Amino acid sequence: MATDPMRNPVLIELTRGALVESVHAGAIAVVRADGEVVAAVGDIARPIFPRSAIKPLQALPFLETGAADRFGFGAPEIALACGSHAGASPHVAGVTAMLAGAGLSVAALACGTHQPTDAATARELLRSGASPSPRHHNCSGKHAAMLATARHLTEPTEGYWRPDHPVQQRIRRALEDMTGCALGADALGIDGCSVPNWAIPEAGLARAFARLATGEGLSPARAEACRRIREACWVRPELVAGRGMLVTEVLQHLAGRVLVKSGAEGVYCGAFADRGLGFALKIDDGAKRAAEAVVVQVIASLHPAARQLGPDPVIANWRGLRVGEVRAADALEAMLAQLR
Amino acid sequence: MATDPMRNPVLIELTRGALVESVHAGAIAVVRADGEVVAAVGDIARPIFPRSAIKPLQALPFLETGAADRFGFGAPEIALACGSHAGASPHVAGVTAMLAGAGLSVAALACGTHQPTDAATARELLRSGASPSPRHHNCSGKHAAMLATARHLTEPTEGYWRPDHPVQQRIRRALEDMTGCALGADALGIDGCSVPNWAIPEAGLARAFARLATGEGLSPARAEACRRIREACWVRPELVAGRGMLVTEVLQHLAGRVLVKSGAEGVYCGAFADRGLGFALKIDDGAKRAAEAVVVQVIASLHPAARQLGPDPVIANWRGLRVGEVRAADALEAMLAQLR
Repeated sequence: MATDPMRNPVLIELTRGALVESVHAGAIAVVRADGEVVAAVGDIARPIFPRSAIKPLQALPFLETGAADRFGFGAPEIALACGSHAGASPHVAGVTAMLAGAGLSVAALACGTHQPTDAATARELLRSGASPSPRHHNCSGKHAAMLATARHLTEPTEGYWRPDHPVQQRIRRALEDMTGCALGADALGIDGCSVPNWAIPEAGLARAFARLATGEGLSPARAEACRRIREACWVRPELVAGRGMLVTEVLQHLAGRVLVKSGAEGVYCGAFADRGLGFALKIDDGAKRAAEAVVVQVIASLHPAARQLGPDPVIANWRGLRVGEVRAADALEAMLAQLR
Repeated sequence: MATDPMRNPVLIELTRGALVESVHAGAIAVVRADGEVVAAVGDIARPIFPRSAIKPLQALPFLETGAADRFGFGAPEIALACGSHAGASPHVAGVTAMLAGAGLSVAALACGTHQPTDAATARELLRSGASPSPRHHNCSGKHAAMLATARHLTEPTEGYWRPDHPVQQRIRRALEDMTGCALGADALGIDGCSVPNWAIPEAGLARAFARLATGEGLSPARAEACRRIREACWVRPELVAGRGMLVTEVLQHLAGRVLVKSGAEGVYCGAFADRGLGFALKIDDGAKRAAEAVVVQVIASLHPAARQLGPDPVIANWRGLRVGEVRAADALEAMLAQLR
């Protein structure tokens, strides 16, 4: 049993009629590249699994080893490496081309298989009676980049997903450098796509994203890799998530200013490039609906136009009647006031 | 902003590697028909929206007015009235027959429309290019029973879903009697299917289910209606939910002993008929995964074979690797110890 239960403040309330029906607690850190905490709510020192929100940092060795350049990969392939894509045809075609470019086949992917999250693509697969392939997995772009890196360095591609494989150890060291946090075996979890995911305090994640967005305090080579990663996300936002998805919408509307990446279990990481601030958030219960509501409010606190992005705060029922709303709780309002 | 935030103890932890990744808080009440609280955790005096968990009680006037008998309805129709069905063909056919039996058409249903939750039926609809109808809505059996009641009493069927319609006022009075709680306009919410849903403390919901399961303290007519409702759920459990769904599995495996009904936003109500105990639970954040894990543990505390029902407590990833587990937190363990 946990001796230190996760108990952060309520950030989001869902109402029905005059009452609060459900609540979501969580923690948020907003941090400068030098580690200064600018605004925070909840326990930002507790390690959390960043899940897919860490993908833009996991892509660093793909660029820094020269793997991307070796195979002629540019913004589309870098965006796919950073992305949790929807499995639509541009994503599947892009991953297929990355694997072919590195001389590999789909069989090399160890991410597993799930239905594409793009509804039209999922319907089309069902209609045609076809099964999804590992290329439809939202992490297949990251896996193709890991495989290309191993190929470039003549490391075995077999087992590239294991924690002790050089590809994963190189990523671990990049994460330690960027977050300023030591990542030992006690912090190791296995992600949904089978690669290692290290638990990292939100303060460290937010700091890493501030550095990713600004290059501050980084070697010239790393700063250049960070520049290429953020530019790729802003130039090809549709490859970082997909049609109508919040990450893609934010990257499209706030290109050059806001970075953002989602992770499973209610995580978001991102940065305000123009303010030199990184942020990280996790919802205690892992709810996507709450994470989306919070990240929209955080981004909108500095870029008010972002309020139109993301899910409707009105809760409507199956006949379209308004039955309640999704709203910021006091603790989130207080944190946003620190940030504005 | 809420001045009294919902802050119940953590009941469920989800681990990844050596760490707790996400948590779910909530409250549970286990109560006798006379109102005595036998075991509890969290705030069981705070009104919660029971959502569809209340359906077996909403069915009382359908029996007590004579509507069910008038139209020759028996266990299948009563089970559908109590159920949140999966929209598979037996459900759709049953609701169609109820409407026809009461001289009504599908157009009378005001529940709205959603895709059937039965995966095979949803796939088949997509393959054939057909759209779901209101009969596929999980609440269509309840709505057919409400319509049949209005028809039987020559009340208007138009607007049967409005809070001031006699059908809904009759249900409100039945809920007040069964729960022992006054239900005023301040407790009124609109459910996903557009009918009123009144917020009720978990202690009152659990008491109502203890009475439903035992008939204790009820008039002979109401006790008989309760007997017919619980028998219908035990005789036709596949009509109360659907293939592979937790409610159906519990009703099948523990017929005559355990009643259980799910609701949206992490609610379950039920009863141990053989012990004279009712129970109610809500997960603060509304998560189904946590509500299912808790209700299995509550039922298994008195019927250990129930541990095999419901979702696997092992968390596996897309390649089937074990990455963590869903487990009871200390507060839930302590409450289960009170119950055993």
